Amino acid sequence: MTPEEFRRYGREVVDWVAGYWERVESLPVMSRAEPGEVRAALPAHPPETGEPFEALLADLDRVVVPGLTHWQHPSFFAYFSANASGPAVLADLLSSGLGVQGMLWATSPAATELETHVLDWLAELLGLPERFSSAGAGGGVIQDTASTAALVATLAALHRASGGEAGRAGVGSGRWTAYASAEAHSSVLKAVRMAGLGDAALRAVDVDPGTLAMRPEALRAAVETDLAAGMVPALVVATVGTTSTTAVDPVPAIGALCREHGMWLHVDAAYAGAAAVCPELRWTHEGVGEFADSYCMDPHKWLLTNFDCDAFWVADRAALLGAMSVLPEYLRNETSESGAVIDYRDWHPQLGRRFRALKLWAVLRWYGAEGLRAHVRGHVALAQELAAAVDADPRFELMAPHPLSLVCFRLATGDDEADDRGNAEMLRRLNASGALHLTHTRVRGRHTLRLAIGSPRTERRHVLAAWRRVQETATELAHGTA
Amino acid sequence: MTPEEFRRYGREVVDWVAGYWERVESLPVMSRAEPGEVRAALPAHPPETGEPFEALLADLDRVVVPGLTHWQHPSFFAYFSANASGPAVLADLLSSGLGVQGMLWATSPAATELETHVLDWLAELLGLPERFSSAGAGGGVIQDTASTAALVATLAALHRASGGEAGRAGVGSGRWTAYASAEAHSSVLKAVRMAGLGDAALRAVDVDPGTLAMRPEALRAAVETDLAAGMVPALVVATVGTTSTTAVDPVPAIGALCREHGMWLHVDAAYAGAAAVCPELRWTHEGVGEFADSYCMDPHKWLLTNFDCDAFWVADRAALLGAMSVLPEYLRNETSESGAVIDYRDWHPQLGRRFRALKLWAVLRWYGAEGLRAHVRGHVALAQELAAAVDADPRFELMAPHPLSLVCFRLATGDDEADDRGNAEMLRRLNASGALHLTHTRVRGRHTLRLAIGSPRTERRHVLAAWRRVQETATELAHGTA
Repeated sequence: MTPEEFRRYGREVVDWVAGYWERVESLPVMSRAEPGEVRAALPAHPPETGEPFEALLADLDRVVVPGLTHWQHPSFFAYFSANASGPAVLADLLSSGLGVQGMLWATSPAATELETHVLDWLAELLGLPERFSSAGAGGGVIQDTASTAALVATLAALHRASGGEAGRAGVGSGRWTAYASAEAHSSVLKAVRMAGLGDAALRAVDVDPGTLAMRPEALRAAVETDLAAGMVPALVVATVGTTSTTAVDPVPAIGALCREHGMWLHVDAAYAGAAAVCPELRWTHEGVGEFADSYCMDPHKWLLTNFDCDAFWVADRAALLGAMSVLPEYLRNETSESGAVIDYRDWHPQLGRRFRALKLWAVLRWYGAEGLRAHVRGHVALAQELAAAVDADPRFELMAPHPLSLVCFRLATGDDEADDRGNAEMLRRLNASGALHLTHTRVRGRHTLRLAIGSPRTERRHVLAAWRRVQETATELAHGTA
Repeated sequence: MTPEEFRRYGREVVDWVAGYWERVESLPVMSRAEPGEVRAALPAHPPETGEPFEALLADLDRVVVPGLTHWQHPSFFAYFSANASGPAVLADLLSSGLGVQGMLWATSPAATELETHVLDWLAELLGLPERFSSAGAGGGVIQDTASTAALVATLAALHRASGGEAGRAGVGSGRWTAYASAEAHSSVLKAVRMAGLGDAALRAVDVDPGTLAMRPEALRAAVETDLAAGMVPALVVATVGTTSTTAVDPVPAIGALCREHGMWLHVDAAYAGAAAVCPELRWTHEGVGEFADSYCMDPHKWLLTNFDCDAFWVADRAALLGAMSVLPEYLRNETSESGAVIDYRDWHPQLGRRFRALKLWAVLRWYGAEGLRAHVRGHVALAQELAAAVDADPRFELMAPHPLSLVCFRLATGDDEADDRGNAEMLRRLNASGALHLTHTRVRGRHTLRLAIGSPRTERRHVLAAWRRVQETATELAHGTA
């Protein structure tokens, strides 16, 4: 494709994306495709001869779009949002066009330095302490996702706890233990498993039945039981904003226990981290600055940066580098050996790395601190209004605290089993309507609906319409109508 | 940013990228930035108020571009290329704009089905066997990089070898062993370490001093020694096209040994895999179809697809799913439980995943099989012409076979130590010139220059100019001129 062709098709694609954002509200949120339907519309074999770009764009509309669940739809309330924004998407296009690799400082110095710089900026915006800044012993790096952050934190924790022996000789059997609340994200279990400890090494610590946050006394009991059995507690993952309900683990108490026993504290604030741009929500991060050895949050969830972009910080990069560094001859270079620069390949599992700092830089500059705060505050206010409406309807029950932009609720008649079926059926009908998309979880064992607000396109009218539809569906169910 | 603003700035960014591609040849290939120079040009604190997009574009030119090493420059001959192309970059922009997540089939069916489909297409283009196709027990998935593919292959191998015990109870101590040639990529060691086995579990198998490919008899000896010592050989990584010299391990003999001992065979063809689009180069993949349990190649290296895109296939997805699956309540859904669909979150470490199949689809359609073959053949022909020129200059020595698009050579006067210094100085001068960028390796212990051809912008004139400059620099060095 010549630069001139790129200009022409580039304009078409930009227009296509802008048009998609304008019309996405008119599309059914959740795809109605049946398994195999998309593939059936595609040729069985790849083309022998090249095709015009127009053919791709035609198939995008014909085959792909009907098979999508529209995450950028203003009535997408499922999971947590993965919100894109104009400045992020355009800066990501610049990154694709530049096509540089930032695995070493030397392979493109600006890719490394801009990343270090914007993560210092972001740390400042979130109120994270000096310890995480690159000016000291710590620093930030962009990981792809919070799952990878959890893996890297686990490896760094094992490195520190073993004095490097885990990396040299392996993790050995049955000694290391890790802890997270029973409500922690599945990526913690996956990280512990991938690191070779096995699922059995992760203790699911009890939560408070009301707040659904980790009970520090339960953590203490688990750690002491393990110590008595000759285990070596190495890692605690505290969650600020669980996936299920946005519960906030009590980091100060957890952190004090970690310090007492020399355990690595990783704080997973994948979704809720963005809230810390607002001073009035920064209570969610209490203890992080004092106690966390590592911390992550996802700008690709609630901070207007398109996927993937997980911001990960460590307080002391020595353990991280010790865990992750491998140095072959073909990557040796003078600047790296001088120690004056950061080589980010030693900060994550991959070697190659995209210039992702550009999109985060674009977001922080386009919106500014004020814009980011307004974005988060708007969603939190909508969630509080929704929660009040749920609370005011006697047919429904709020299932968990809702300090941020997720509201968990269910129809509750008092017959738990029947209600589980009723809520599942309500969810099925709501999603089948195409008008909105919610997902579910289990809270204290009961089927619960989650309505997560996070799209920059979501306005008050979308939340009110969603709630009206939930109420109407509840009425239909009560009357036995389809 | 409104859709209208996105259209306006989008056009500017598209023009910027097209203009960058047009002028990149005029820029020094390797950045001349000093450590800290880029950061010093940036404000110390993030902006409180949003800034216009023009400010970002201005700083892109002022601060970022001078700090880049230009991987898309036609005279970038370092590492392996990471070649972007117009159709890939535009399809990736579509992916950013759509902003969907493909972690489950249900979260956007088209994202999953298109990925499965184009990986079947690509398997066909590479001549990979039915075993890797999604129609049978195998299938393909896009990983970010070959490093992650190596990690996933290691975890699947351990799952199979342990009957699932590794994932449940951990890898234990000192039993599992893995094997790769002494020339294998550093990511294999990193994978083995991350999986909890420790560096000591990886055997660096001797290579043939001429071909630099793994010696199957050395592998057999290593495996038998380990078996006799009570170890459990679980994984062999064979490389098709090593990073250092593009050596091709003898997969048929290695595969037969793997089968004999029940070891998982992962074939890493990160760079060289693209060569298999050409029937005349498919000898490099001999044995892969018959013996490999998993295989990967990087379309982001030599197949015109911008980073990141590693294509990874398994012959039997059961071990992979066994190793990687974790199922929390909030991801449960009817379609997944029906077993009728693929949920790619169980195929890699991360949960969230970008719609990367779009860019690979665009590349396969825009270029067609013919275009991809012409792309690879052009580079291979240039490398052969260069190698002949090196061979014809008595001051230089070809250091390794060069069947693909990498040529390894060095100045050789007969005094090895002095020549090591001379080649290092030659490399320094070449890179400092700004006219081209090479990197080095060690071949049989000796400092060796690598000239890797892989950019779609590289023409014959760029390779000839590079070689002329190498010759001139050798002359300067011989005469002691600066």
